[in-house]
Amino acid sequence: MAINRELREIAEHIGGTISGDGDVVIKDIRGIDDARAGDLTFIANPQYRKKLKETKASAVIVSSEIRESGKNLIIVNDPYIALTKALALFYPEGRNPTGISSDACIGEDALIGEDVTIYPGVYVGSGTRIGKGAILHPGVSLGNGVVIGEDAVLYPNVTIYRRCIIGNRVILHAGVVVGSDGFGFAHPGRDNMKVPQTGIVQIDDECEIGANTTIDRATLGKTWIKRGTKVDNLVQIAHNVVIGENSVIVAQVGISGSTKLGKSVIVGGQAGIVGHIEIGNNVMIAAQSGVHEGIGSNNIVAGSPHRPHRDWLRTQACIAKLPEMRKTIKTLSQKLAILEKELEDLKE
Amino acid sequence: MAINRELREIAEHIGGTISGDGDVVIKDIRGIDDARAGDLTFIANPQYRKKLKETKASAVIVSSEIRESGKNLIIVNDPYIALTKALALFYPEGRNPTGISSDACIGEDALIGEDVTIYPGVYVGSGTRIGKGAILHPGVSLGNGVVIGEDAVLYPNVTIYRRCIIGNRVILHAGVVVGSDGFGFAHPGRDNMKVPQTGIVQIDDECEIGANTTIDRATLGKTWIKRGTKVDNLVQIAHNVVIGENSVIVAQVGISGSTKLGKSVIVGGQAGIVGHIEIGNNVMIAAQSGVHEGIGSNNIVAGSPHRPHRDWLRTQACIAKLPEMRKTIKTLSQKLAILEKELEDLKE
Amino acid sequence: MAINRELREIAEHIGGTISGDGDVVIKDIRGIDDARAGDLTFIANPQYRKKLKETKASAVIVSSEIRESGKNLIIVNDPYIALTKALALFYPEGRNPTGISSDACIGEDALIGEDVTIYPGVYVGSGTRIGKGAILHPGVSLGNGVVIGEDAVLYPNVTIYRRCIIGNRVILHAGVVVGSDGFGFAHPGRDNMKVPQTGIVQIDDECEIGANTTIDRATLGKTWIKRGTKVDNLVQIAHNVVIGENSVIVAQVGISGSTKLGKSVIVGGQAGIVGHIEIGNNVMIAAQSGVHEGIGSNNIVAGSPHRPHRDWLRTQACIAKLPEMRKTIKTLSQKLAILEKELEDLKE
Repeated sequence: MAINRELREIAEHIGGTISGDGDVVIKDIRGIDDARAGDLTFIANPQYRKKLKETKASAVIVSSEIRESGKNLIIVNDPYIALTKALALFYPEGRNPTGISSDACIGEDALIGEDVTIYPGVYVGSGTRIGKGAILHPGVSLGNGVVIGEDAVLYPNVTIYRRCIIGNRVILHAGVVVGSDGFGFAHPGRDNMKVPQTGIVQIDDECEIGANTTIDRATLGKTWIKRGTKVDNLVQIAHNVVIGENSVIVAQVGISGSTKLGKSVIVGGQAGIVGHIEIGNNVMIAAQSGVHEGIGSNNIVAGSPHRPHRDWLRTQACIAKLPEMRKTIKTLSQKLAILEKELEDLKE
Repeated sequence: MAINRELREIAEHIGGTISGDGDVVIKDIRGIDDARAGDLTFIANPQYRKKLKETKASAVIVSSEIRESGKNLIIVNDPYIALTKALALFYPEGRNPTGISSDACIGEDALIGEDVTIYPGVYVGSGTRIGKGAILHPGVSLGNGVVIGEDAVLYPNVTIYRRCIIGNRVILHAGVVVGSDGFGFAHPGRDNMKVPQTGIVQIDDECEIGANTTIDRATLGKTWIKRGTKVDNLVQIAHNVVIGENSVIVAQVGISGSTKLGKSVIVGGQAGIVGHIEIGNNVMIAAQSGVHEGIGSNNIVAGSPHRPHRDWLRTQACIAKLPEMRKTIKTLSQKLAILEKELEDLKE
Repeated sequence: MAINRELREIAEHIGGTISGDGDVVIKDIRGIDDARAGDLTFIANPQYRKKLKETKASAVIVSSEIRESGKNLIIVNDPYIALTKALALFYPEGRNPTGISSDACIGEDALIGEDVTIYPGVYVGSGTRIGKGAILHPGVSLGNGVVIGEDAVLYPNVTIYRRCIIGNRVILHAGVVVGSDGFGFAHPGRDNMKVPQTGIVQIDDECEIGANTTIDRATLGKTWIKRGTKVDNLVQIAHNVVIGENSVIVAQVGISGSTKLGKSVIVGGQAGIVGHIEIGNNVMIAAQSGVHEGIGSNNIVAGSPHRPHRDWLRTQACIAKLPEMRKTIKTLSQKLAILEKELEDLKE
């Protein structure tokens, strides 16, 4: 539940300047359409600026470009960051460890740290290590020899296969699967001979993985998600993929086997990336792209097959003009035929 | 198990007219290829009409365009609707409440209605309310403060996060995740600072959500699926999305944050929709479309990026002709060069 | 854990010829970048050939094209197959049946074969049959009347709805859903009247299904995955689909209702296939394709909408040239106008 606070106190906490009444009492934070008297709201996207006049909120977090009179404002550099801090103030994360349920099954030799919460219906394999403060929600299943970091949160029905390693403060949303067999078959389409998948998955500290995303174990070695990377829902990460630090992988992306992404790569929703290629640092891949070959650092690409974003824009503009182009070509052909004939007549 | 019935009785139930023998006894309903003597089958799609002669079925549900002699027919306006009614007659939905398993974990202050069925391995958080007649299959996990409507069915391993609201007669198929955190990070690609997701998901009456579909909770306020909307498997619905009444979202569609769909919108499989846009009522979006901006009511669109369906068809026709167009342009250039030269010669 | 073996012994097991020292002792198998002294590695993809000089591995599995001196080699016809055999030698599959957990719920009349392993938190419906040697991991839920074949492995949180049939030696990875209702509604976008889904899913022997993949039950009859077919993660297979023997369906593919695939069909990642069509044998469908109509046997297709792969390549080459084509058309138009004028002048 939210706690009442004066606007002044919030401004201080989020590092903003007040324009208007700092004494006003704020009871909750709501979106600009839903906000009522007593609420704080925010404008992060300039397209919503026109809603400032209509909102019933008692105060609004805005960027320094906005200086509307008649509203109580907290003026900040980045309203989205400020909102994040304000939300953390109003909705402090509650972690009340409730211990290990007697309705959970804990394997032999499992090492469970302090203040770990294990809900009913959890299965923990033998030889597993669980760091202090970790939370395992109902239906979580950990194979033998799994390692879970400190303060990690595994939401309901997450599955981790044997020997996979989850870092500190990692969040795995419901239904995530980590460590399923890589899709490796010799003679595909003939006898589909299964290649044993003997590697693991390693997810480093501060990563967050979205609901029902699947991350396959390596054939040999490890599939590796590096520190601070955020993966959305329903993403497929194949065997031996490596994703660099602080990358952002949006929903329903598919990354094929052995492909390596650099740091701070952003991949838009539903994009697909072929196997065995390298993507550099700070690359941006547009939604629904099909990436078929490696990309150097600092590039922006789009389309399927992908091309530089600028080229893609130009190509798309042409595609919209195709019917017109086709017509023009036809007209040109006709005119040219006439000219040819006329010229022939002239020559005679 | 199916129950024997006379054709006459079935025709009456589904509102059709018999052509042939109404006394024939029907034992089951099967597809036209699999049907045997004693079976009722149907032709809904005209492309299967030629199978009417070959089928071994004892009777066939058909539309009024078909009046084939030699077969027992039930003639109806809409064979698919008629099939639906016939199936409901032969396979009445069995709801035998079996009570609350002692192998389920029910939190404090949970309010459980009459005739609720809770299977083993279910976890129900504290303060949760479950409407009468609801069925929670094995492995279902409900967070604190969740509300489940009357006669709702949650298949195995469904996860509902804290405070989300599920309406009456809603069906959630296995592995559905409702209420996972929205994918909101400030400074994406830099420090990926997590924005707390403090809103909820609300799914209204008569909705059905397909297996392993994920619906994220709102940052603030609610993600909202309105009455009668049907969502297929493996769909991604992001934070603060609103989907209007009676819409149909086919498998593997992705809808990005804060986008609003009107009533009776139909979205084809694997389509993607960007965030922060509005789609009107009765819009149809073709499979694999990429919708990048808002669409007014009653439009049909296709392609990625999307365009009006008619334009898309024309554009696609041109794309198929591109190699030919390119060749023609080359030929035109050559002919023009010749003409230019000839004209030059003439002038001299 | 891996077991030490002489190179000679491994070569014999995988059917290769040694070049170099057959007495060297191999302790493990690692990828070419990670391999250390004592390791065996492999080069399957020619693009990695240049790494042969740098690897620290004590021996390398290679194809007969490579005869590099200074390294211990096992020369084979197919390095990937050879690796598969070597891995099976080093990592023999451990199946130690551990019996039926007292924390599992087994329904009435369930028939459980010899040497079956049932983990805690498993739910087995009434009338279910489980073949000998099968393994049901934690959180698996089987509806009433389900059949599970011999030596089948169901990883955690797999859901099988009532009456579905799983063959011998089938592997279902975590979170797979088999038998959820097909997405069938009469009057879509109007009242979305649910069509009862009374059929089943049948998965034949030696199939493997990837994590969080969903396979819907048939409306009538069965959805059918035939022997030896391998399906990757997050794939959607709709009601009444039939997939022939030894096919390979890569991650995030969607196959719509009633479509039939032949034998040895390979479908690339994120491809979508419309409903009610037939795909022949040995068809290859490129990643991200959109297949909108039937395809005869032995064809290779690409693109959305799909076309023959060769045509698609030609078309793509043209699309890259579109801005240039458009410019040329403009130039041609201008030149033609000049010519027309000049010709007019000449005639006067």
